[in-house]
Amino acid sequence: MTNDSQPLILITNDDGITAPGIANLVDAVKDLGQVVVVAPDKPQSGMGHAITIGEPLRLKQSDIFGDIEAWECSGTPADCVKLARDKILHRKADLCLSGINHGANHSINIIYSGTMSAAMEASIEGIPSAGLSLLDFRHEADFSLAKEVARTIAQRMLAHPMPEHTLLNVNIPKLPKELYRGIKICRQAHAWWKEEFDHRTDPRGKDYYWMTGKFINMDERPDTDVEALEAGYASVVPVKIDFTDYEMKKILEKDWGNN
Amino acid sequence: MTNDSQPLILITNDDGITAPGIANLVDAVKDLGQVVVVAPDKPQSGMGHAITIGEPLRLKQSDIFGDIEAWECSGTPADCVKLARDKILHRKADLCLSGINHGANHSINIIYSGTMSAAMEASIEGIPSAGLSLLDFRHEADFSLAKEVARTIAQRMLAHPMPEHTLLNVNIPKLPKELYRGIKICRQAHAWWKEEFDHRTDPRGKDYYWMTGKFINMDERPDTDVEALEAGYASVVPVKIDFTDYEMKKILEKDWGNN
Repeated sequence: MTNDSQPLILITNDDGITAPGIANLVDAVKDLGQVVVVAPDKPQSGMGHAITIGEPLRLKQSDIFGDIEAWECSGTPADCVKLARDKILHRKADLCLSGINHGANHSINIIYSGTMSAAMEASIEGIPSAGLSLLDFRHEADFSLAKEVARTIAQRMLAHPMPEHTLLNVNIPKLPKELYRGIKICRQAHAWWKEEFDHRTDPRGKDYYWMTGKFINMDERPDTDVEALEAGYASVVPVKIDFTDYEMKKILEKDWGNN
Repeated sequence: MTNDSQPLILITNDDGITAPGIANLVDAVKDLGQVVVVAPDKPQSGMGHAITIGEPLRLKQSDIFGDIEAWECSGTPADCVKLARDKILHRKADLCLSGINHGANHSINIIYSGTMSAAMEASIEGIPSAGLSLLDFRHEADFSLAKEVARTIAQRMLAHPMPEHTLLNVNIPKLPKELYRGIKICRQAHAWWKEEFDHRTDPRGKDYYWMTGKFINMDERPDTDVEALEAGYASVVPVKIDFTDYEMKKILEKDWGNN
């Protein structure tokens, strides 16, 4: 049932519409507005901000969430948001929530994350949005704390009207509730994944490589998301879509002249 | 032949190793150092910063560029850079160049761009890097101006030692050389793609959707890459990997408290 007086909340994810994380997210916020789910029909982790250009997309209505309008899409998380805006939602969403991801998306992970790319796409389209990730990649992860955090974030974003390009990267620690210390506003930690590819040979004698890697936090200053999570907080990093390095711009203007 | 006294230049792209754009890039810079190419074995446009987690990667040596060491990889542009660092290069590259892309990657396109994701990955790994894109998506595009710009950028980046996380988004206008006005340092224009999905029905009566869209530049202030390109310049936007919105961070710290 459409009710234009209720906030319209678009929900998506990158683990696919059948993942426990998205079911927990729907459950956490379904009474805060009119919820519409448009999510990938299969896992899309590590898809970054991929979009589908060379092949058509499929969209199928789903009753997986009972009364809640839900659609499964053959594309990427970013595709889901684009299709939702153009073909499914009949008014501009008030909020987009992406997740709850099974696994961390703090620090540099934001650029690899399908969860964050969906939230980023919504933000680009003028919908205040948040990506939510739990630091537990297991299918059977305990989402009870993450649900509470998701609900608090959604309530705050709906209560304080946010600039339309607002985008929050929210990570929730893997902790029992009694050890959780609250929400902390942070900056993105300077970190990277150092990949070590596991080299194997297939039965026909050909080489192949599995990506493995270790996370390296190079940030020694305070106030990062990684630090907050380690201290037992849920980290909230506000993200902007202008990636210009203004300091470097000044340096290059000086060094290179403008020609 | 490895020569450790020469700069080591890693070249990749997202249009695939057989695209004219990468051949032109190799040709433009091959005498500036030791060039090693690691590029996708098929087109990867629109892949954003996708990485390959769930399946193994293949890597095959190629003689497509004659004497220049070249490898084709089954993964994404970001995978190519990761594999190059771990398995192919025996020292840290001095420069990574990605492109020359067939088509624009200015403004918001940076987040959808496989070309830029490869350059971004190199920058994360501490290799100064540039993504190069020509505003002409055709296979038979004229790369002569783009080659000159690519060579100039590479020379400047090698001549002035750059901070290791330097990342430049370079776009080259589709212009005859006599109308080209030089290189301009810019900021990323605030713009988006408004998708309009083309809805069709397949022979079995099922719906499908082709992504189409129009580019909307919402930026009315000066100094953007879009503006520079329209004026006949090659645009150079320095990019940083810290996506934190520091202004919004202050606002949220005030409004939300730190809990």
